[in-house]
Amino acid sequence: MKTRPFSPGADALIGVVHHVLDHGEVELVDYMGTDEHLCKIARVSTGSERQHLGLLGYLVRHKHNTPIEFGKLTLRVKIPWHLAQQWLRHRTGAFSVHSHRYQPPISDCYIPSEEYIQSRPTEGVKQGRGATMTEGDAQWVRKTVAESAESALALYSALVEEDGGYSGLAAEVARIVLPQGQYTQFYWVTDAHNLMHFLNLRLDPHAQKEIRAYADIVYKIFCAWLPALAQAFDTYVRGAVTFSAKEAAALAKVGLNACLVGLGDYGMSAGEIAEFTAKLQKLK
Amino acid sequence: MKTRPFSPGADALIGVVHHVLDHGEVELVDYMGTDEHLCKIARVSTGSERQHLGLLGYLVRHKHNTPIEFGKLTLRVKIPWHLAQQWLRHRTGAFSVHSHRYQPPISDCYIPSEEYIQSRPTEGVKQGRGATMTEGDAQWVRKTVAESAESALALYSALVEEDGGYSGLAAEVARIVLPQGQYTQFYWVTDAHNLMHFLNLRLDPHAQKEIRAYADIVYKIFCAWLPALAQAFDTYVRGAVTFSAKEAAALAKVGLNACLVGLGDYGMSAGEIAEFTAKLQKLK
Amino acid sequence: MKTRPFSPGADALIGVVHHVLDHGEVELVDYMGTDEHLCKIARVSTGSERQHLGLLGYLVRHKHNTPIEFGKLTLRVKIPWHLAQQWLRHRTGAFSVHSHRYQPPISDCYIPSEEYIQSRPTEGVKQGRGATMTEGDAQWVRKTVAESAESALALYSALVEEDGGYSGLAAEVARIVLPQGQYTQFYWVTDAHNLMHFLNLRLDPHAQKEIRAYADIVYKIFCAWLPALAQAFDTYVRGAVTFSAKEAAALAKVGLNACLVGLGDYGMSAGEIAEFTAKLQKLK
Amino acid sequence: MKTRPFSPGADALIGVVHHVLDHGEVELVDYMGTDEHLCKIARVSTGSERQHLGLLGYLVRHKHNTPIEFGKLTLRVKIPWHLAQQWLRHRTGAFSVHSHRYQPPISDCYIPSEEYIQSRPTEGVKQGRGATMTEGDAQWVRKTVAESAESALALYSALVEEDGGYSGLAAEVARIVLPQGQYTQFYWVTDAHNLMHFLNLRLDPHAQKEIRAYADIVYKIFCAWLPALAQAFDTYVRGAVTFSAKEAAALAKVGLNACLVGLGDYGMSAGEIAEFTAKLQKLK
Repeated sequence: MKTRPFSPGADALIGVVHHVLDHGEVELVDYMGTDEHLCKIARVSTGSERQHLGLLGYLVRHKHNTPIEFGKLTLRVKIPWHLAQQWLRHRTGAFSVHSHRYQPPISDCYIPSEEYIQSRPTEGVKQGRGATMTEGDAQWVRKTVAESAESALALYSALVEEDGGYSGLAAEVARIVLPQGQYTQFYWVTDAHNLMHFLNLRLDPHAQKEIRAYADIVYKIFCAWLPALAQAFDTYVRGAVTFSAKEAAALAKVGLNACLVGLGDYGMSAGEIAEFTAKLQKLK
Repeated sequence: MKTRPFSPGADALIGVVHHVLDHGEVELVDYMGTDEHLCKIARVSTGSERQHLGLLGYLVRHKHNTPIEFGKLTLRVKIPWHLAQQWLRHRTGAFSVHSHRYQPPISDCYIPSEEYIQSRPTEGVKQGRGATMTEGDAQWVRKTVAESAESALALYSALVEEDGGYSGLAAEVARIVLPQGQYTQFYWVTDAHNLMHFLNLRLDPHAQKEIRAYADIVYKIFCAWLPALAQAFDTYVRGAVTFSAKEAAALAKVGLNACLVGLGDYGMSAGEIAEFTAKLQKLK
Repeated sequence: MKTRPFSPGADALIGVVHHVLDHGEVELVDYMGTDEHLCKIARVSTGSERQHLGLLGYLVRHKHNTPIEFGKLTLRVKIPWHLAQQWLRHRTGAFSVHSHRYQPPISDCYIPSEEYIQSRPTEGVKQGRGATMTEGDAQWVRKTVAESAESALALYSALVEEDGGYSGLAAEVARIVLPQGQYTQFYWVTDAHNLMHFLNLRLDPHAQKEIRAYADIVYKIFCAWLPALAQAFDTYVRGAVTFSAKEAAALAKVGLNACLVGLGDYGMSAGEIAEFTAKLQKLK
Repeated sequence: MKTRPFSPGADALIGVVHHVLDHGEVELVDYMGTDEHLCKIARVSTGSERQHLGLLGYLVRHKHNTPIEFGKLTLRVKIPWHLAQQWLRHRTGAFSVHSHRYQPPISDCYIPSEEYIQSRPTEGVKQGRGATMTEGDAQWVRKTVAESAESALALYSALVEEDGGYSGLAAEVARIVLPQGQYTQFYWVTDAHNLMHFLNLRLDPHAQKEIRAYADIVYKIFCAWLPALAQAFDTYVRGAVTFSAKEAAALAKVGLNACLVGLGDYGMSAGEIAEFTAKLQKLK
């Protein structure tokens, strides 16, 4: 009797809770598909006889994304609301989110540790952050943010609880006083293609530092689940460099003939050397 | 020379700002398609010769949604974050949202007026709200929520501003102290089919009262833009009643022969009477 | 150590090839999720303590579809092109389809058996079919269609093969002579919510008879995989009856007070009786 | 009174029928959005003060696709089925397709002209085509394909028409004898981001020659509608060159210091030079 394809790396992580920030959590809940299985799906279309590592690299660098959408992943994530907002913008998966209309609020609020307490970026830069603050300033920030969170939670309780003649405000209204740093929790299901898109955006140095901490964990789960696809992702997506038409014109001008020799040294297959040579010819 | 199809009702609303809650806004920014145009799209598939009102009704009640997806609408919405979260869950459109990482925060916070200040629902009900509060309690809630918002905004300013030796916390961190009732702003583009889905959920009495106030405005824009489709929506979606298999068995048992006469009185077409008769036959 | 949730019914079907029409096949290749698991996903949002059968019914009849999207299914399907076109219109899943540009064509063509050889529908009906043909006519149709398919396949071979000085036409051009009844093959991954949508459309008596034969097999796989959800689907989707606003007005006029007694007999829970009573009140 | 944003280039093309292949057609039916309007949508998020040409380039090269999804386009396309299959795989738009179940078939079939009649690709190449055939061979192919199409259409007519005692086969069955080169017709609505994705795939030299002929027309419509975005597409998508991590290592080895001078000559802005320098630094 046949069984479902399984990934030993993913099986070892099912139900393991990874901790991040002060109260954050990421847990692999379920998955479907393996490196080999995605290749089987691809072969119905292309009939390719490549081995799975080579075939996955080919699919990724030529954006043949459909077979990769056959790999599915379910995660449980506990995360502050201001970061959840960024995660929830990825519309291609499904999210089942803790509802404050149906359930008591989660009383954890994000209080950044000192490595996350950084000053505004330098003049002229719109996003991101500058240097880590002095220890004294960082402690003041932590203390102030913590007091503000406690005070908001206390106010929330005072608003919703019945007390003497007071009838208790509806939770769905009272929550407007809670801070945006309050934690929420969701389940997320996505596919391996859209997971790579998420990782490429959220592992980027321009992504907010806190969400990068989550993305680092998700990336480790991805590597354990689909090690060959993760290698293709590193080579052809995350580590790739794209030149615009103008940049390519500049490169072409200074000449790249030297590139046309000795490419066997960089671990490329015959097919990859042919593609690179074609790109360089395009530059000439 | 041909021109784009246009809807007089929608044209009259372009750029008009509708106000809602204390600082909320909804504005029709752009649209594509008309009642007649959606029918033209449908006819390439079905070849139907029905008039547009009849054809739109047919499409809606048989869930032939594709032609309806050819109608597009762009709105600008200013709304508190805890409500925006509900809106942003509709994954089938696109949202361009005010970014607190790139821009100064919007300093308006939602302070409910008295009609929105209601107590918790009665025992055993999980969601929604109960009766309006006494005037004294409502005033206390308004005052308390307003003070909390002011205090959070002041703290945010203190955190981000440079002051003496203090270097100013990065905005993307400092925002964790802002309340969930703070306003944000987004552009939303969606299609007429998914707009009806949004309206059906958000006009429902179980939807949160504040978002129903927004949905009421969106519904008025929809009626001005596509009056015939809006009528089909009222008849076949919003005003429809669905009986489960069990309920249908119950209805069948008590007999509904009386229904089989005199249906011409309810404004049904010959085709609609045939469909209703078929449903009743199914019940028998 | 925790393991992935598994469904005994689905496990027993992995790799089993179901046959349909003359050369059609459906095979369950992989799946993710179980009845219990979908409920666990739902509970993070609602906090519901219902048992899984009751909770799935609640989710289905209130269109809380997100948790149901966490169930995933991969099928391999071999099917004639004119039917594949209908299947491929379901845009919410992913398809990896046999490519005639990369691979040799599949040489099977659909020759309907006698039960599928039916005459045109009666005057005034646009779609579907009428009575089964006489044995003699059906045999003529089978013979004619089979000869036409053979002749098209032979022409295709003559076009693409090199022969003497003739250089052989490119396969991607030559395929234009192949019949629309030629078989193709694809892998399909979808989620349980969209699977129910597919089944509701393709099990319907108005769907083309051949695709209903495929849908019957897919439905059996669905029942084995998620038996409780399949039961909810039968009760609240497939077996449900929806009345338009006009129909509801008609029902209301003839009076349905008799419905308000004795509903315990139809297997409804207390909650379902309350909902039905509310619908009937709405009719009054 | 405000009006909808309009694009003079698109307005001039509304209703104009472009001809392609022997019976193919492409027609701009409707659109929403302009270069300036997409920038307005983007600015709610980023607050950018760049001019529209610069801002669109920034959005495209940093894959900030959401604002670009606010541009919508409706086309009518008449195209042979084997090509329509490729077009219909783009799942992000909506298609309203001529239905052979509801309507009489379109009796045009694709008979390639001589420039499209090409031999199989050379040994070892899986897809595409080789040289144009000799005039004699091409004429034989045209004649043979045309006869085959005529014969299939005649057989279809014989199958469906009542004749004496024969009752006429249902159209939805009879169509299995029609050739895959038969024309169909559909309306397609998509957004500017997914349109660029379609164009990037279908303008590519590896795309099938016939669909490239359609893509050339769609590209011209795109340039007329959104000229600045089309320029960004040419520079940052279609004309871009992406190097994998391995290729980048090779480039780095041969040294590119020469690139670091004189880049003002290639029409780059200060920001673009900074980005290119950063990429080259990454290569070092």
